Amino acid sequence: MSEAWLDEVRWDEHGLVPVIAQEASSGDVLMFAWMNREALARTAELGEAVYWSRSRGKLWHKGEESGHTQRVLDMRIDCDNDVVLLKVEQVGGIACHTGRHSCFFQRRMADGRWEAVEPVIKSPKDIYK
Amino acid sequence: MSEAWLDEVRWDEHGLVPVIAQEASSGDVLMFAWMNREALARTAELGEAVYWSRSRGKLWHKGEESGHTQRVLDMRIDCDNDVVLLKVEQVGGIACHTGRHSCFFQRRMADGRWEAVEPVIKSPKDIYK
Repeated sequence: MSEAWLDEVRWDEHGLVPVIAQEASSGDVLMFAWMNREALARTAELGEAVYWSRSRGKLWHKGEESGHTQRVLDMRIDCDNDVVLLKVEQVGGIACHTGRHSCFFQRRMADGRWEAVEPVIKSPKDIYK
Repeated sequence: MSEAWLDEVRWDEHGLVPVIAQEASSGDVLMFAWMNREALARTAELGEAVYWSRSRGKLWHKGEESGHTQRVLDMRIDCDNDVVLLKVEQVGGIACHTGRHSCFFQRRMADGRWEAVEPVIKSPKDIYK
C-alpha cells in the first residue's frame, strides 16, 4: 500500500502527531498520546494502537504489558492534517495506567480544585504483574 | 479564587497544554487546540473556551468571529495533569473553520486514502463575513 497517506500528515518539529483515542461504543475520550510515522504505520498495519512513548523514546504497543489493547475501528485526521483521532474498542475497558476506564478522571470542581471522580476498576498492582 | 489548580497543570516547555473539545450531548470530538495559563484561566472565568493560537501568537476566544462559541459544561484533566478535556455545548453546531460540525471529518479509507466523509453545514464564506 502506498505511503502517501503518511506523507499527508503534518508532523511537528519532533516528527510527531498528537493522537486522541475515543471509545467507539460509548464516545468516551480515553487517552491522549503521540505517534511518529512508524507508530502510525504500525497502527494501520496491526489494527491496534501503537504510540510513540516520548518518556521512553520508543514505540509503545498500547496494552503490551496490561493486555489492554485498543482495536482501531475508525481513524480520522483533522482539518489541518496535524491531529489524529482513533475510534477504538478498548479491550478490558481500562485505558488508564491508574486502572480507570479513561485517563480524564479528574474534574474541575466548582471551588476550582481538580478532583478524581471516576472509580479505579482494577488495581494497577493487579494489572502490571 | 485560588490559582492552585492552574499550578497543578503540567505546562509544556512552551507553557502550553493540549486541549480536546468534545460535544457533551453527542460525545463527538470537535477539535483540538492549545491553551496557555491565561487562556485556561479565562476559559474558567468566562465559561467559554479560550485557546492560545500558536499561529497568531495570541489568545483566541473561540467563536469571536464566527459566533460559534463553546460553552464549557465540564472540564477534565488527565492522569498526568498534562492534557485538558472540555465537554462543551457547541453553539451553532459547527466547530470547524471549514463549516463542518467537527474538525475530524477526514477518515482513513480501506485503500489508505484520507477522505472527507462529513458534510459542510455552512459555507465558510457565510460564517466569516
